[in-house]
Amino acid sequence: MDESTISRRLGIAVRKHRVALDLSQDKFADVIQMHRAYYSSIERGERNITVWTLWRVAEGLGVKPSDLMAEANL
Amino acid sequence: MDESTISRRLGIAVRKHRVALDLSQDKFADVIQMHRAYYSSIERGERNITVWTLWRVAEGLGVKPSDLMAEANL
Repeated sequence: MDESTISRRLGIAVRKHRVALDLSQDKFADVIQMHRAYYSSIERGERNITVWTLWRVAEGLGVKPSDLMAEANL
Repeated sequence: MDESTISRRLGIAVRKHRVALDLSQDKFADVIQMHRAYYSSIERGERNITVWTLWRVAEGLGVKPSDLMAEANL
């Protein structure tokens, strides 16, 4: 698997949960105190994020990082 | 949870699997084509690795990245 595939799959899983919370990208980025443009690029699968960033996003979404990874088939 | 706790937990889970394969740190680093010192620092929990690096390590260990994360209680 290549890096962009991993980022894309993860972005899709993150987006699904954020939408389920009925929050806009900008609103959610604000909640987790992340730059909006950066958060948006994560959902688009353009970022090879660190496990720490993954943890911050997952915590905001109310899910475990390992579950997010599993949903992304990683 | 803070960044260093995440890295430390992940390092412990990685080390457990590498030891189970009966490979030295250096040998395993060579197998996955990673710099030995860098790999060693991952096991020591000193690196906030990216999901791509996590994937490379997990693949070498023969486990899923999501399972490694779950074993690290993340």
